[in-house]
Amino acid sequence: MTDASATPFETALEVFNGQAFSALIGAQLRRFGDGVAVIEVPHRVELLQQHNFLHGGVIAYAIDNAITFAAGTVLGTSILTAGISIVYLRPAGASITATATVVGSTRRQAVVRCEVHSTDASGTSVLIATGQGTATVVDR
Amino acid sequence: MTDASATPFETALEVFNGQAFSALIGAQLRRFGDGVAVIEVPHRVELLQQHNFLHGGVIAYAIDNAITFAAGTVLGTSILTAGISIVYLRPAGASITATATVVGSTRRQAVVRCEVHSTDASGTSVLIATGQGTATVVDR
Amino acid sequence: MTDASATPFETALEVFNGQAFSALIGAQLRRFGDGVAVIEVPHRVELLQQHNFLHGGVIAYAIDNAITFAAGTVLGTSILTAGISIVYLRPAGASITATATVVGSTRRQAVVRCEVHSTDASGTSVLIATGQGTATVVDR
Amino acid sequence: MTDASATPFETALEVFNGQAFSALIGAQLRRFGDGVAVIEVPHRVELLQQHNFLHGGVIAYAIDNAITFAAGTVLGTSILTAGISIVYLRPAGASITATATVVGSTRRQAVVRCEVHSTDASGTSVLIATGQGTATVVDR
Repeated sequence: MTDASATPFETALEVFNGQAFSALIGAQLRRFGDGVAVIEVPHRVELLQQHNFLHGGVIAYAIDNAITFAAGTVLGTSILTAGISIVYLRPAGASITATATVVGSTRRQAVVRCEVHSTDASGTSVLIATGQGTATVVDR
Repeated sequence: MTDASATPFETALEVFNGQAFSALIGAQLRRFGDGVAVIEVPHRVELLQQHNFLHGGVIAYAIDNAITFAAGTVLGTSILTAGISIVYLRPAGASITATATVVGSTRRQAVVRCEVHSTDASGTSVLIATGQGTATVVDR
Repeated sequence: MTDASATPFETALEVFNGQAFSALIGAQLRRFGDGVAVIEVPHRVELLQQHNFLHGGVIAYAIDNAITFAAGTVLGTSILTAGISIVYLRPAGASITATATVVGSTRRQAVVRCEVHSTDASGTSVLIATGQGTATVVDR
Repeated sequence: MTDASATPFETALEVFNGQAFSALIGAQLRRFGDGVAVIEVPHRVELLQQHNFLHGGVIAYAIDNAITFAAGTVLGTSILTAGISIVYLRPAGASITATATVVGSTRRQAVVRCEVHSTDASGTSVLIATGQGTATVVDR
């Protein structure tokens, strides 16, 4: 079984940097450890939808990936995300930060929640979406 | 109120082509009408994760967008996606197609489900993920 | 491993009738087999909320149980429901029927969707909620 | 519009006690206010499934109701629960307590998360399920 304690930030960063899609989005892993992962997606025009807000798919990517990495802090790197659920609260017009926190885990599964914040026109931090998901250990 | 019957495939395609993020992904709107939307994401190395499977975020994007467009066929274009839930069943190693279908709707809300298929090594179509979501009419 | 083909309707009915909570609710298993399970909850005043509609928890019960039994038709009886997501579309004022259908499955997991119908004041069938869920095989 | 500040614990308790289904389950509202609602479901044999664990539908009821009441602390009493998603982590063999907390809200919608705890054989508190849901204001 994977030893989760053998997953320092550097290792997580290598995994993250090995994700071509994260590079395409321009996302960055900001924090990894102790049940928490934080992913930032800087604002870019390539990430918008037809009303010039951040595309919901970008928010979904950030939640999916932050949940998976947070689970990795307790389960190790041999995991798969089994499912996520997302609630969209407000449109986002600036950079976003997805903060995922492990709520509970068994030996083989972790339940993680995630909050995505952005800033509004006045620069105030606002909650734009929340997520919940699970990841499970993959036997190899 | 938005007249959904005023949303032909051409109009939907214009909206879709106005999504910078869909262009970044390389997605294509294949079908739109009568409660159904189909979005295809051709396989590209820029869309992969560290194990060379399609990143879960790409699948989440396809589900989010297909659900929104399917809802648009019955609610019109002034809508917001309120939430989605995703179940990942298998990793995808090839192009994917997300087919979203309106299950039911009221005057202001549509419930949509989505199935994402890919092909396995032998070229057989396989279900890789399913989704469920809602979209609601936005008053302007 | 459990042989799913060894789970005829009679066996499923025994399992269902062994659920004290299903008896408390007054639910009935109407159909079981080939990826489908149907559970009916007859209207009773004990199942209502403060506005005299069916309590959302009753609908959630029906979705949870129908999804689990539908998964049982393909995975056998040694399974656990891993998670469900529910969308409520309309309040229900009469008996409900939850119809769950397996959308896809691997050797160890099934993805199931569910639609809950009731009847409105004029006796017309209406969709009141939809659900999506997964069940996984339990090793014993 | 409903004034949420006009919803003290006594009023919430009246609403809760007006739910016939909550009485059938034997649930009790333990806390209500400031974005939080706590519902306890004492252990009873009538609430079990075929393996003598608490039926998943009971857990789903507790999550649904706790999320709705927590939303009520910020949105007032004229609300409907739009949807919930549930992750089951462990089977429960004793009383459960569902604690729901508002994560964020707009004028018309609240996003709420919920954790359900029980006790294991040694009397230690264990997380058995988590939930996420939304409630929206109903115009009358």
